[in-house]
Amino acid sequence: MSAATASPSAGPLGGLRIVESTAFIAAPLATMSLAGLGAEVIRLDPPGGGLDYTRWPLSEEGASLYWTMLNRGKRSVTLDLREEAGREAAARLICEGDGIFVTNLPARGALAPEALLERRKDAIVVTLDGSPDGATAIDYTVHAACGAAIMAGPEAFDAPVNNAVPFWDVIAGRSLAMGLLAAELERRRTGRGQHIALSLSDIAMEAVANVGILPEAELTGQARARQGNWIYGSFGRDFSTACGRRFMLAVVTGKQWRALLEATRLGAAMERIGEAFGTALDDDTGRYRARHAIAALVQDWAGARDLAAVARAFEGTAVCWSPYRDARQMLDEDPRASTSNPLFERIAHPGVAPVLTPRAPFRMTGHPDLPARPAPALGADTAAVLSENEGTEK
Amino acid sequence: MSAATASPSAGPLGGLRIVESTAFIAAPLATMSLAGLGAEVIRLDPPGGGLDYTRWPLSEEGASLYWTMLNRGKRSVTLDLREEAGREAAARLICEGDGIFVTNLPARGALAPEALLERRKDAIVVTLDGSPDGATAIDYTVHAACGAAIMAGPEAFDAPVNNAVPFWDVIAGRSLAMGLLAAELERRRTGRGQHIALSLSDIAMEAVANVGILPEAELTGQARARQGNWIYGSFGRDFSTACGRRFMLAVVTGKQWRALLEATRLGAAMERIGEAFGTALDDDTGRYRARHAIAALVQDWAGARDLAAVARAFEGTAVCWSPYRDARQMLDEDPRASTSNPLFERIAHPGVAPVLTPRAPFRMTGHPDLPARPAPALGADTAAVLSENEGTEK
Repeated sequence: MSAATASPSAGPLGGLRIVESTAFIAAPLATMSLAGLGAEVIRLDPPGGGLDYTRWPLSEEGASLYWTMLNRGKRSVTLDLREEAGREAAARLICEGDGIFVTNLPARGALAPEALLERRKDAIVVTLDGSPDGATAIDYTVHAACGAAIMAGPEAFDAPVNNAVPFWDVIAGRSLAMGLLAAELERRRTGRGQHIALSLSDIAMEAVANVGILPEAELTGQARARQGNWIYGSFGRDFSTACGRRFMLAVVTGKQWRALLEATRLGAAMERIGEAFGTALDDDTGRYRARHAIAALVQDWAGARDLAAVARAFEGTAVCWSPYRDARQMLDEDPRASTSNPLFERIAHPGVAPVLTPRAPFRMTGHPDLPARPAPALGADTAAVLSENEGTEK
Repeated sequence: MSAATASPSAGPLGGLRIVESTAFIAAPLATMSLAGLGAEVIRLDPPGGGLDYTRWPLSEEGASLYWTMLNRGKRSVTLDLREEAGREAAARLICEGDGIFVTNLPARGALAPEALLERRKDAIVVTLDGSPDGATAIDYTVHAACGAAIMAGPEAFDAPVNNAVPFWDVIAGRSLAMGLLAAELERRRTGRGQHIALSLSDIAMEAVANVGILPEAELTGQARARQGNWIYGSFGRDFSTACGRRFMLAVVTGKQWRALLEATRLGAAMERIGEAFGTALDDDTGRYRARHAIAALVQDWAGARDLAAVARAFEGTAVCWSPYRDARQMLDEDPRASTSNPLFERIAHPGVAPVLTPRAPFRMTGHPDLPARPAPALGADTAAVLSENEGTEK
C-alpha cells in the first residue's frame, strides 16, 4: 500500500489514497476535507467534466468557483465511466491503490460496491444517496422534509425559509469523511473492508433528532413554533444600531449575562424586570421568560449607539455577540477572513485569480504547516495516474 | 490499551476510548457520533451537571432532551474539575486509557493540552473554541459573522435570518470527529500524538469559502444578493398547493428537468418560454435566467392540485421535490421518520419516555446491527469507571 512510502510531513492522512467519482457538494467536500489532511485523492470525471463542472458562481475566466473550491488538493483524471472499459480501469486504480472508493453517482459494473469488494476483500466503498427509499433528494428537498425550513424565518412570515448555505450537504460531507476514517481504522485493526452507505435525508433527520427537535415533537405532539431570530430557551436576538447595522447577541451562561449587564450598565433596570416578572434573571429559563422586556432595554441601548460604539463597549468582555456581515463586509471588516488568520492562504487556482483559500480547519501541533492547495485542472493528472498505476506490481 | 480487549462486533471504533469534558452542542455531538460507531466515550461532568445539563427542550420529567440526545451511548462520570484533585483524576483516566481527550471548556492544570502531552507523549488532545482570536463565539454569533444570515430569508425582508437548527455546531462536531480519527490513524502509523485545536468561526468561514460564496465576493467585490427560496444558478423554489401546503422543487440535472416536464405536461409551454427568452431551457443557466416565467407556470400547475395529487404526479419519477413538513408532520407523514427506517429505533432514556433515537447514520455491511443507545444517567458510571481505572496496570 502507498502508506509505506508516504512522507510523514504530508499530514495526518499521508499515504492514504482515495478514488472518487462524485458530483455536487457533499461527496466532493468529504474527500476534499481528507485531501486537506494529507490524503491522496484522485477524482474521476468524464472528459469535458461532470454534472457539476460548470456550476455557478463562475470566475471571469468561466471556471466554476464551486467546483474549484470543492476539489482543492485533489488529482484529476478523466475517464468515461459510462463505458465498462472506463469502469474497469477505475476499478483497477481503486483496488491497486488503497482500495478506497467514494461515490454519489450510480456505480455500476466493475464499480458496483459488491464488484469492488469481490475484487478486493478489504475495499472500503462509501456511497452517498439522497434518500434511503431510493427517491431523488438534494440539500433543498431534504431541508424541506426535515422540519428545519418551517421553523426558520421571521415569526410573522407564513412561508418556509430555505438556507443560503447548503448546510445539509456540508454536514453529510463531514459525516462521510468521519465514517470513512472509522472504517479505515477498523481495517487497519482487523483487515476487513466493507460497503458504507449513507443518505442525505438520514443525515438531516438524525441532526434534528440530535438537537432535540424531533423528540420534542414526539413527546409533546407539537412541532416547536417558529422562534424568529430568538434563541429558544435562552436569551438572544438580533439588535439594530444607530448607524443601521445589526448584531446578534447571545446569553447562554451566567458569565455572559453578568458581562452584558456590566457593559451596558443595565444591571439595575434588569433587576426591576426580574421583579416585574417575578423571576430571577440569573438563569436561562428566567431570561427566556422575560426575553421581550430584556430585549426592549437592550435595543434602547443599542439603538442609541453606532456599531463602533457597541464594539467598544463589548470588546475584551465576555459578552457573546457579533455584527451581522455579508461576505463583502467579512472581507473588509473581519481579520479572521484574511491571511492574518492561519486558516487562510491566498492562492490561485486554474481559471481563478488568487483568492482566500482555506487550509484544513485545524491547528495541529504535529502538522503546523498543512498547506492550502489549489484545485487541479480537469484531467491534468490522467496520464500520470494511469501510468503510475500501470507500473504498480501487486 | 483497551483496543486489545474490544469486541469486534462493537462497531468500527470498538476499543477506542475517549474522555470528554464538554458542553453545549458541537463537542458533545462529536463524541456522541464516535460512540455511535463503537468508541467507548466517558463524559466528565461536575456533580449536579454542567452548563448544558438542563437546556431546553425538557421532557415532562424535566430531563433535557438536548443533553439526552447529544450524550447517547456515553458513560457518565461526575468529577469536580474546578479542583486540581479532580483534574488529576481525569488526567489519569485519560492517560491510562487511550490518551484521547476532547474539550470545549477551559482546560487548566493537569488537563491542559501541554500537561497531558507531557504525561503521555502520544496523547491526542482535541480542543474546540469559539474564535481563533480568543473572543467568545457560539453558533448564533458565528452565523451572523460569516455572511450566511444576511443571505438567508425572503427577498423583500430587510433583516438577517438566524437558523432554527444550530448548523455550525453540527458541522463543527462532525469536523472535530473527522480530525480526531485522522490523528488516531496517524498515531497508529507513527506512534505520535498531538494537540488539535479548532474554532467554530473557522468552521463557518471555511464552509462559506468551500461553497464558493467567499471567493465570489472577493473576485466580484460584491456579496451575492439574497435569493429568497430560489436556488442560485439553477431552477428551484417553493410552490403552494390548492390545499395550502408547500413543496420545494429543485432541478439541478437535465434528467430532473425532463421528468418535471413529463409529470406536469408543461413541455410545450416551456418551449415557448425558451423562445421568448431566447435561451434553451436544457441547462442550468437558461433555466436560472427564465426562472420567474418557469415558476409561474409550475405554480399554476401546483396551485390547481392538492398535495396528494402533486405527490401522485411526481411519484416514481426523477422529479426532485419534497413537501415542507414541520417535525410533527414528519412523524405523521414520512416513513423515513419512523422505525421503518433503519436509521431509527424507539428507545427510552433516563427521564425520557421512548422516542425515535438515531443509530449511526451509516448502513455498514461490516456492522449491520449497530444499535441506538440511551443516554446515561448523570454520574451513573462514576464508581465503575474510577475503580476500573484504579485497577489498570501500565
